[in-house]
Amino acid sequence: MKKNIFYAQSGGVTPVINSTAAGLIDAYKRNKKKFGKMYVGKNGIAGALNEELIDIDKENSKELAKLKHTPGGAFGSCRIKLQDPVKNKKEFTRILNVFKAHNIGYFFYNGGGDSQDTTNKLEKFFKQNSYDVKCIGLPKTIDNDLPITDNCPGYGTVAKYIATSTYEASLDVASMSNSSTKVFLLEVMGRHAGWLAAASGIIKDNNVHAPHIILLPEVLFVRDSFLLKVKKSVKKYGYCVIVASEGIKNSQNKFVSASSSKDSFGHAHLGGVAPKLASYITDKLKFKVHWAVADYLQRSARHIGSKIDVQQAYAVGYESLKIAKKGLSGVMITIKSSHLGKYNWKIKNTKLSKVANKEKQLPMSYISKDGFGITGKCKKYIQNLVEGEDYPPYKNGIPVYAKLKHPLVKKKLKSFK
Amino acid sequence: MKKNIFYAQSGGVTPVINSTAAGLIDAYKRNKKKFGKMYVGKNGIAGALNEELIDIDKENSKELAKLKHTPGGAFGSCRIKLQDPVKNKKEFTRILNVFKAHNIGYFFYNGGGDSQDTTNKLEKFFKQNSYDVKCIGLPKTIDNDLPITDNCPGYGTVAKYIATSTYEASLDVASMSNSSTKVFLLEVMGRHAGWLAAASGIIKDNNVHAPHIILLPEVLFVRDSFLLKVKKSVKKYGYCVIVASEGIKNSQNKFVSASSSKDSFGHAHLGGVAPKLASYITDKLKFKVHWAVADYLQRSARHIGSKIDVQQAYAVGYESLKIAKKGLSGVMITIKSSHLGKYNWKIKNTKLSKVANKEKQLPMSYISKDGFGITGKCKKYIQNLVEGEDYPPYKNGIPVYAKLKHPLVKKKLKSFK
Repeated sequence: MKKNIFYAQSGGVTPVINSTAAGLIDAYKRNKKKFGKMYVGKNGIAGALNEELIDIDKENSKELAKLKHTPGGAFGSCRIKLQDPVKNKKEFTRILNVFKAHNIGYFFYNGGGDSQDTTNKLEKFFKQNSYDVKCIGLPKTIDNDLPITDNCPGYGTVAKYIATSTYEASLDVASMSNSSTKVFLLEVMGRHAGWLAAASGIIKDNNVHAPHIILLPEVLFVRDSFLLKVKKSVKKYGYCVIVASEGIKNSQNKFVSASSSKDSFGHAHLGGVAPKLASYITDKLKFKVHWAVADYLQRSARHIGSKIDVQQAYAVGYESLKIAKKGLSGVMITIKSSHLGKYNWKIKNTKLSKVANKEKQLPMSYISKDGFGITGKCKKYIQNLVEGEDYPPYKNGIPVYAKLKHPLVKKKLKSFK
Repeated sequence: MKKNIFYAQSGGVTPVINSTAAGLIDAYKRNKKKFGKMYVGKNGIAGALNEELIDIDKENSKELAKLKHTPGGAFGSCRIKLQDPVKNKKEFTRILNVFKAHNIGYFFYNGGGDSQDTTNKLEKFFKQNSYDVKCIGLPKTIDNDLPITDNCPGYGTVAKYIATSTYEASLDVASMSNSSTKVFLLEVMGRHAGWLAAASGIIKDNNVHAPHIILLPEVLFVRDSFLLKVKKSVKKYGYCVIVASEGIKNSQNKFVSASSSKDSFGHAHLGGVAPKLASYITDKLKFKVHWAVADYLQRSARHIGSKIDVQQAYAVGYESLKIAKKGLSGVMITIKSSHLGKYNWKIKNTKLSKVANKEKQLPMSYISKDGFGITGKCKKYIQNLVEGEDYPPYKNGIPVYAKLKHPLVKKKLKSFK
C-alpha cells in the first residue's frame, strides 16, 4: 500500500511559504501513482496532534492554483514547541499514532530553526519506534538566519519590500526636510540577525544617499554614536533615514526595545524600537522625526514578490518530494548558490542535525567599518535575491488571493488532551 | 513677450504628486510656442521667497520622463504658512517682486487645503497690485479631504496600498491566531477625516472577514465598546484585524494618541495610536497583539500605484495649462465623477474661495451603523479610485525613480530675509 504524505506549516509565516506548499502539491499531483494521499496539518503540527488533516484532493483546485502568489499560511501555522520526547513522550507518541492511523510515510515540515529541530527529533523518534517515515525539513524564514542553505525562502520578497519602502520613504522625507521632517525611521523585523535591516542598504548608490544609518543586532547600539551620526547626516544631506532591526541591543546586552512577555519558545516579544529611537532624537537633537513600524506588513507583502524568491520557494517544495522518494530522511532542503559572476542556484539538502537551533548572523565582511551600513559584498548577495518582480493578479483594485476550505479527513482516533 | 510659468509643490507629498508635475511639464513642452519658460520652486513656495527657480528646460529629460512614476516631491515640498497679507505684506510683496523679475504669468500651486488658501490669497494680492498672474490650484492630498472635487489625486494609490496591506496582514494573523497572535492593528494617516482607514474596508466580502474594526475620526472612540468588539471578533473568527486613523478622539475630544501614558512595554508614546490601542487590548483582554504604523510608507507607496489615480493626477497637471491659457484664474482643478454604473470622470474647476480651508469628512451614509465599518456605497466609491495597477520600472530588483538636479535660474534680486 502506497504511503501518504503529511505537510505542515510552522512558525511565523512568510509571503512565499504557500509557494513552497504549491510546489509540493504540484509534485504530488504529477506523481500520484507513486504516493497515496496528501494531507496538510491544520494549524501546523497542531493538525497532527488534533488529528485535523486537510485532504488536498478535496480542496478547490482553482483556489490551490492561487497558492503560489498568496501570502500568509493558507493551512494555518502554529507557534507550538513540542515537549522534549526524552522528558515526556506524550506528544511524540500521539503524532506517531496519528501518522500510523493515516498511513503517513512522508513528513514535510515547513519552518525556521525551531521547526527543523522538531523535525530532527521526530525523525529520531520514529526510527526508535521502528516506524518508517521520511522526514524532510523545508526551510522558511524571512529572517534568513538558517545555516548551510545560502538563503531562506521568504527573505528575498521581504528584502525587496524593505528596500523599496525605504527608497520611497527616503524620497518623501527628502522632499519635506527643508522646512519640516528631517528624520525618517523604519523598524523592521530581525531578532538576532540583521539580514532584513541590511536589505535597505541596497538602494544606496551615487544618487541615493539613504539609508544613512542601518542598525543591526550584530552591532552594539551606542546611543551617543548613533545621535552623532544622525546629526552629521542631517547636516550633510539635509535629512537622515534610519532602518533599525527590532533586535538591537545596548551595552548591558539588553534589547533597546525589551518586553517582559515571552512566546512559547521562550523568545521575548519585541516591537517598538522605532518610537524609542525617535524619542532619543527629538529629546537630544530637536529634529522632527517620522517613524514607521512595518511589522506584519513586511512579512506578508506578497504584492511586491521577488521573482527569484518565489521560484526558490516553489522549487524547495517541488524538489523535496523527489528527495523523499529517493529514500532520504532527516534532511533539510537547501539552496546552494554561486554569487560569483551571474547568480545561479540549485536545490540540495543537508542533515537536519547540522541545521537545528543554529542561527546565521550577518558575517563581519557584510558590515561596513563604522557598523552603520553594509559592504559591497553584502549588497551583491542581497541584490541577487530580490531580482525580478512576481505580481499577484488583481480584481477590483486588490490582489486575488487563495481562500481554502480545509476539508478534513475523517478522524480515526480518540481526541488528544 | 510670452509669460513664464511657475509651479510649486506644497505640504505633505503623495505617491503621485510628481505625476501632476509630469502632466504640467508635458503640456508645457507641447505648447512651447504659447508660453515662455517653465520654472519650478525649489522646496515649494520657499523657492519663490528665496528666488530659487528650477529651470525645467535644463533638467535631464530622461529623468523628467520618470516623474510620472516617482513618489515624494521631486522638486522639494514645504510646510510654510505664509503670513496673512493684511497683517504683514512682506512675504506676499516678495513673491510679487520675484514673479515680476522673472516675468511669471502663470502660477500653479500643487497642494491640499492650506495651499489652496495660499493660492487664493496670492491671486487677490496680485490683482490688488495690478499684476496679471493666472493662479491655479492643483489638488493633492492622500487625505482626500478637499471639498467640491469628487476625490483628490494621491488618495487612490494610498487607498490601494492600505487595502492590499490590510488584506495581506489579515492572511498572516489568520494563520497565526490558533496558537499565537490574535489581533493585528494597523495605524494609518488621517487626522480629521477617515478616508484612508475606510479604504481597508473594501477587502471585506463573503470570503474575507477582515477588517473587523475600522476606527474613524468621524466616530467618537469609546474604549469599552471597542474592546467588546475585539473580544467578539476573536470569539467568532478566531482573530481580529483593526485599522485605526491616527486622528481618533475620545469623549473628552482629545486625540487618543496624544496621551502622555506609556505602552505595555514601558515605551513613552510619540504619536502612535497603534501601540496605545494595543496596550488597551493586552491589558484587558490578554490577547497577543501585533501592530504596525505605516506612516511615510503609505504616503510614498508608488510601487503599488492605482492606475486611475495616476491618470487623474497627470490629467490635473496637463489640463491645468489649458485652463490657465483660457484666462481663468483663482480656480482649483477638480475631478468630476459619476459613480453610477460604470465609473467615469472628467477635469473641471471651481473657485478657490469655495475650497480654501474646508475639510470634507466621510459622509454619514458611508459609515456603517455601529461606526466600526463602511457601507456598500463607500466601498463602491473607493473601489473606483483604486482600480488598475500602474507599476514603476525596476532595475536590480528595486524601482527606478527620477533623480533631478534642480538647475537654478540666475537670481535677479537681493536675497530675502
